[in-house]
Amino acid sequence: MLPDTYTIPLIQLASGDRLSLQVYRFVGADPGKKVYIQANLHGAEIAGNAVIYQLMDFLKTLQNTELVGEVWLVPVCNPLGVNQRSHRFASGRYCVYEGKDWNRIFWDYEKTQEDLQEFAKTQINLDKDIIRINYLNKILNSFAKLAEKIHSPSSVTFTELFRHRLQSLSIDADYLIDLHTSTDRGLDYLYYFSRREPSAQYFLFDYGILLDDYDGDAFDEAFIKPWLALENTFQQLGREIIFDVEAWTLELGSGMQMLPQSVEKGVQGVKNYLLHKGVLATPKTKAIPQKMTFKLKSQIIKYYAPAGGMIQARVTLGSVVKAGEKLYQILMFNKTGELPYVIDICAEKDGLVYDVATNHAVNEGEYVLAVM
Amino acid sequence: MLPDTYTIPLIQLASGDRLSLQVYRFVGADPGKKVYIQANLHGAEIAGNAVIYQLMDFLKTLQNTELVGEVWLVPVCNPLGVNQRSHRFASGRYCVYEGKDWNRIFWDYEKTQEDLQEFAKTQINLDKDIIRINYLNKILNSFAKLAEKIHSPSSVTFTELFRHRLQSLSIDADYLIDLHTSTDRGLDYLYYFSRREPSAQYFLFDYGILLDDYDGDAFDEAFIKPWLALENTFQQLGREIIFDVEAWTLELGSGMQMLPQSVEKGVQGVKNYLLHKGVLATPKTKAIPQKMTFKLKSQIIKYYAPAGGMIQARVTLGSVVKAGEKLYQILMFNKTGELPYVIDICAEKDGLVYDVATNHAVNEGEYVLAVM
Amino acid sequence: MLPDTYTIPLIQLASGDRLSLQVYRFVGADPGKKVYIQANLHGAEIAGNAVIYQLMDFLKTLQNTELVGEVWLVPVCNPLGVNQRSHRFASGRYCVYEGKDWNRIFWDYEKTQEDLQEFAKTQINLDKDIIRINYLNKILNSFAKLAEKIHSPSSVTFTELFRHRLQSLSIDADYLIDLHTSTDRGLDYLYYFSRREPSAQYFLFDYGILLDDYDGDAFDEAFIKPWLALENTFQQLGREIIFDVEAWTLELGSGMQMLPQSVEKGVQGVKNYLLHKGVLATPKTKAIPQKMTFKLKSQIIKYYAPAGGMIQARVTLGSVVKAGEKLYQILMFNKTGELPYVIDICAEKDGLVYDVATNHAVNEGEYVLAVM
Amino acid sequence: MLPDTYTIPLIQLASGDRLSLQVYRFVGADPGKKVYIQANLHGAEIAGNAVIYQLMDFLKTLQNTELVGEVWLVPVCNPLGVNQRSHRFASGRYCVYEGKDWNRIFWDYEKTQEDLQEFAKTQINLDKDIIRINYLNKILNSFAKLAEKIHSPSSVTFTELFRHRLQSLSIDADYLIDLHTSTDRGLDYLYYFSRREPSAQYFLFDYGILLDDYDGDAFDEAFIKPWLALENTFQQLGREIIFDVEAWTLELGSGMQMLPQSVEKGVQGVKNYLLHKGVLATPKTKAIPQKMTFKLKSQIIKYYAPAGGMIQARVTLGSVVKAGEKLYQILMFNKTGELPYVIDICAEKDGLVYDVATNHAVNEGEYVLAVM
Repeated sequence: MLPDTYTIPLIQLASGDRLSLQVYRFVGADPGKKVYIQANLHGAEIAGNAVIYQLMDFLKTLQNTELVGEVWLVPVCNPLGVNQRSHRFASGRYCVYEGKDWNRIFWDYEKTQEDLQEFAKTQINLDKDIIRINYLNKILNSFAKLAEKIHSPSSVTFTELFRHRLQSLSIDADYLIDLHTSTDRGLDYLYYFSRREPSAQYFLFDYGILLDDYDGDAFDEAFIKPWLALENTFQQLGREIIFDVEAWTLELGSGMQMLPQSVEKGVQGVKNYLLHKGVLATPKTKAIPQKMTFKLKSQIIKYYAPAGGMIQARVTLGSVVKAGEKLYQILMFNKTGELPYVIDICAEKDGLVYDVATNHAVNEGEYVLAVM
Repeated sequence: MLPDTYTIPLIQLASGDRLSLQVYRFVGADPGKKVYIQANLHGAEIAGNAVIYQLMDFLKTLQNTELVGEVWLVPVCNPLGVNQRSHRFASGRYCVYEGKDWNRIFWDYEKTQEDLQEFAKTQINLDKDIIRINYLNKILNSFAKLAEKIHSPSSVTFTELFRHRLQSLSIDADYLIDLHTSTDRGLDYLYYFSRREPSAQYFLFDYGILLDDYDGDAFDEAFIKPWLALENTFQQLGREIIFDVEAWTLELGSGMQMLPQSVEKGVQGVKNYLLHKGVLATPKTKAIPQKMTFKLKSQIIKYYAPAGGMIQARVTLGSVVKAGEKLYQILMFNKTGELPYVIDICAEKDGLVYDVATNHAVNEGEYVLAVM
Repeated sequence: MLPDTYTIPLIQLASGDRLSLQVYRFVGADPGKKVYIQANLHGAEIAGNAVIYQLMDFLKTLQNTELVGEVWLVPVCNPLGVNQRSHRFASGRYCVYEGKDWNRIFWDYEKTQEDLQEFAKTQINLDKDIIRINYLNKILNSFAKLAEKIHSPSSVTFTELFRHRLQSLSIDADYLIDLHTSTDRGLDYLYYFSRREPSAQYFLFDYGILLDDYDGDAFDEAFIKPWLALENTFQQLGREIIFDVEAWTLELGSGMQMLPQSVEKGVQGVKNYLLHKGVLATPKTKAIPQKMTFKLKSQIIKYYAPAGGMIQARVTLGSVVKAGEKLYQILMFNKTGELPYVIDICAEKDGLVYDVATNHAVNEGEYVLAVM
Repeated sequence: MLPDTYTIPLIQLASGDRLSLQVYRFVGADPGKKVYIQANLHGAEIAGNAVIYQLMDFLKTLQNTELVGEVWLVPVCNPLGVNQRSHRFASGRYCVYEGKDWNRIFWDYEKTQEDLQEFAKTQINLDKDIIRINYLNKILNSFAKLAEKIHSPSSVTFTELFRHRLQSLSIDADYLIDLHTSTDRGLDYLYYFSRREPSAQYFLFDYGILLDDYDGDAFDEAFIKPWLALENTFQQLGREIIFDVEAWTLELGSGMQMLPQSVEKGVQGVKNYLLHKGVLATPKTKAIPQKMTFKLKSQIIKYYAPAGGMIQARVTLGSVVKAGEKLYQILMFNKTGELPYVIDICAEKDGLVYDVATNHAVNEGEYVLAVM
């Protein structure tokens, strides 16, 4: 089975050159769910590109009868971010023109809708699939109106244009998977949303972090928040519904790298998840969940340098630390005539060191490591 | 009268060097209001430094009996932003490490308080000055708690550290004036808040823009929003109170410049305002308001390039345009074998062109001009 | 007459997108000289794009019998530089990856050739046109060898690739015109080379600066230095030859702008020069030289800030100053508890202020203005 | 023994803050050689700071009778470079204002002197130590003249100021050691100059690269080139002299890190070298040379990506490769509707992979790895 390929103009540059998005779409013989998978939204986070490449290699080996529904794949989904450099480093986490994180710009229907309670009441007795269609249409109608502003003479900023072009590909998906890595060096884990633990376990990761606390306007959040809000509203009205709509951010190891073991974990996880969801209909294989440790985003502690200097003797990535144990040292210099000296920084509470900074020099307030 | 000077360590850099804030504090013979004036929070916006320098020159000529209360002056209030360069340009609007706008990071008490209605009810019959003290104490207590996190081993990001150090100087002020300019090229105008039109007119500006729509966590917003919220709550409870607490952002012309006429406007405006407020008690001069045009922030239209290319034939700064009139042209190149060509962009509605981009080359979605 | 258009792939980005060069080539009915004109090698220097656009508009009105030889036009000739931003500013003077000035990277045959004296001796009695062909072939052969390294597995850096692609378009030209502007704000003038004063006067500029002192590997230098070296060698051998090979850098006003009067000056200058050279064969018009002031690059004085602070009271662009006259002031702040103060900087010698910094804030050692 | 400490103002920033250099100077009881050691000239190359810290710890344990001559230590010797960030990365290899590599800016006496042959003839029969003094005085006199330009109204660029301040500390040293690391990930090795192999072996490194090919104006080059030129001139005049003047650049592993094993190697190497030179006079220890492999800089091959994409399957750092063996793959995307694919890049010749890029995403022409 070969994918359809769509090349979508993304931006015309001042020089007249154009950057594009390219979508690879595998369509099964039978209709079904739409799976949307993208990679490299943040410039340094490249591992997902290899995951997508290997998934394509795998999907190409299938008969179209072995796929139910469709899988949309968008590698290198943010060309401006991907290609950005500062000296030799991939600094494209932010839009340098607007100073905005490329993953905190998305349109969140939940923030604009005003009539959710009212809508929910009109749907309370309907079938879940009908509600899914009705609500998706509300979202799509609202999304379509954004195009008016884009096509007006005053138009919109590039981040608004970009979000619109990316969300127009994904907004009607059933399952959305955003492939990230650490900016720095990190373990493999995933971010998930409320009530999605059962599915999470099919990704075969050791750790999952529940997004119980939003940064705001991330790609996964913007996709699923309207559905979570509707679920919550139904719950208040006395009906329990969990829509089969899911958003995942997979964190696949370290930045500026495609670590083979992280790529492999991503590929196996996505395949097992698709099998579980019935999107892959390869009779001989069976989806098996893996027990995983769930943590809360609100309980994560990120450590920032309380002084400027050089980090040394830092605990290694993957260490389990106890409260009070030494996490790292800062070798501090000064310009006041004194000798340099070293201070120790200790853990505030127990946990797993799941992410550490690439750069061991710190100005005061710069990032050192994170503990979940 | 000479000011007291305070040098406050702001950040220790990786090299061991330290950057500081320096506060100049003029104290009148009689106690009174606290005025806080800062400049250069955004790196390119330097004109306010000259305003502060000239205000200091003026205040030095006064007897301390001619000042009631105190005036705090903080020029170059954001050293990391002020000193940042990209090639020869002052690119310090954003923190390059965190990708955050230096004026969208401040601690906003209104967002954290949960008991405003309750508190307002306990104060409803009290004297305005007592309420002012009680509420300020609530804010100060809440602000003080942020220091705990700063002094914990995990500490905070630099933007959180910075905001704390800057807000600790200003949070108990009565009048706060933040001196900005356009990033690009702009007219002189001010931003003001709800119910402050009467005072606004003492700044002697032609234009004022009401912040009826918040960007979130700007310095002026974060300062005044708790007071506006309390005023609104009292209103709901049936009592009309306007606290003598005011926040202003003065926009003094173009970026990367200290235009003499804009600096002069800033100096005259601040002096007239302080006279009006009774902070300046120079018997021979009298504060006179000036009629000004008030606009709403929500009604401003910013024009972004609908295509990449070179801007030409743009209307001049200060032009009054009618809907449908040509605002600018884009000379568009391409890499598809066609000849370059020019497109026209016209105004969506009538208004005053109050800000225009310094850079006349645009990638799609980049800023061109703004109309109020 | 319409041009031929060639779109030449320049770079494949990490995202798989490609940036290109596009050449517009007008070919006259009769063979003759090759004129090569490019614009926007430095990202901020956009005015030449409008010059090229207007030249194209003019050339399109001609019959092909009115053009002798050919004119190659390459606007936006450095897409990476053109599209680069830091906040809203066009910071693309340097390659951010390699830290190299885009106009100090070109291949200079003179630096590699070892047998110039020897070669000159073999040509001493030949006709100038024959020598021109023989020497050009030597250059072209040497240039062609660079392609081997480019196509080897180890390949070359992007700046080497870029220079090769740009020089392959221009290396066999007779007249090369590189359209620049100030990075900052500047007057209109041109840079010229030894023994080219007579032609210079046909550009109709007020000022010309002789490149008697090389920065090294600039586009114009790299093109003409081999020819100047051969002229010098013949002179030593007792024969005076001036080849009809010329390189010009036109500086057309201020950066990040296409000032109409500078664009107009560029268009008129180039047309008059082409008329003078017989490339334009429009019978009714006649090339007229204009008297201009010639200066030496080695005599230019650039002023750098001897202290950090804010520039004020600077002489205006275009001023004529006398030695000892005040050029500008620095308003200096400090973090040592003292009041801010102002220092004056005076001219070292008489001259014309032909370029001034856009940014009026300076760290110590940053650029303020230049005097020719 | 405690060092003397000198804090030397380096730059006044626009905000009025100042950055400084700090020198730690250990002085032995008996006079002797001057050793100058600095670290972190390039922002990302921090390991040398730990080396200096540990050397200080060691020197503090000595009696001043155990040191002959003096040791000057300058950690974090380039504050602007050290503190510079782009997102979380240490991008300070270049001066962002001037676009110049911080280690290609130094004043090279050899380039300015015109009378070397003449001078050498006047010294040909003198004692080596006398010649050393006479020539050093010539260098110092010439260097002193640079201060005139610095103190003129037009002053100099910051890179010229910086080089002057750093070279004024080191120019009269006997042994100069500049502590670097890879920008990316690298092995430990050193750069040395002509005729210094015997001393090189006391640094206890496995690899040394002879700088037979200059980049121009590097710190080590600028220091030693005048002495090498004098040695060469004497040789032409028939006298063999090798001055006991040496410059070394130690490359201590990977960028943005202080790898303990690289730091340890640096500390042991410098101590053994100082022992060998008699600067350390600790009777119980004896300097022992270590056999090392010497390579030529001109024979190094750096591999740049011939296409944009993602690097995978790259040979590991420290691999020995044969010509024709696969070095790495590029996973290439496109925006022309085709499937992504992979290409292999093979070694041009045999060698040791001694340096590899941190960033595995490449635009065409970006760095991948280097083979010595």
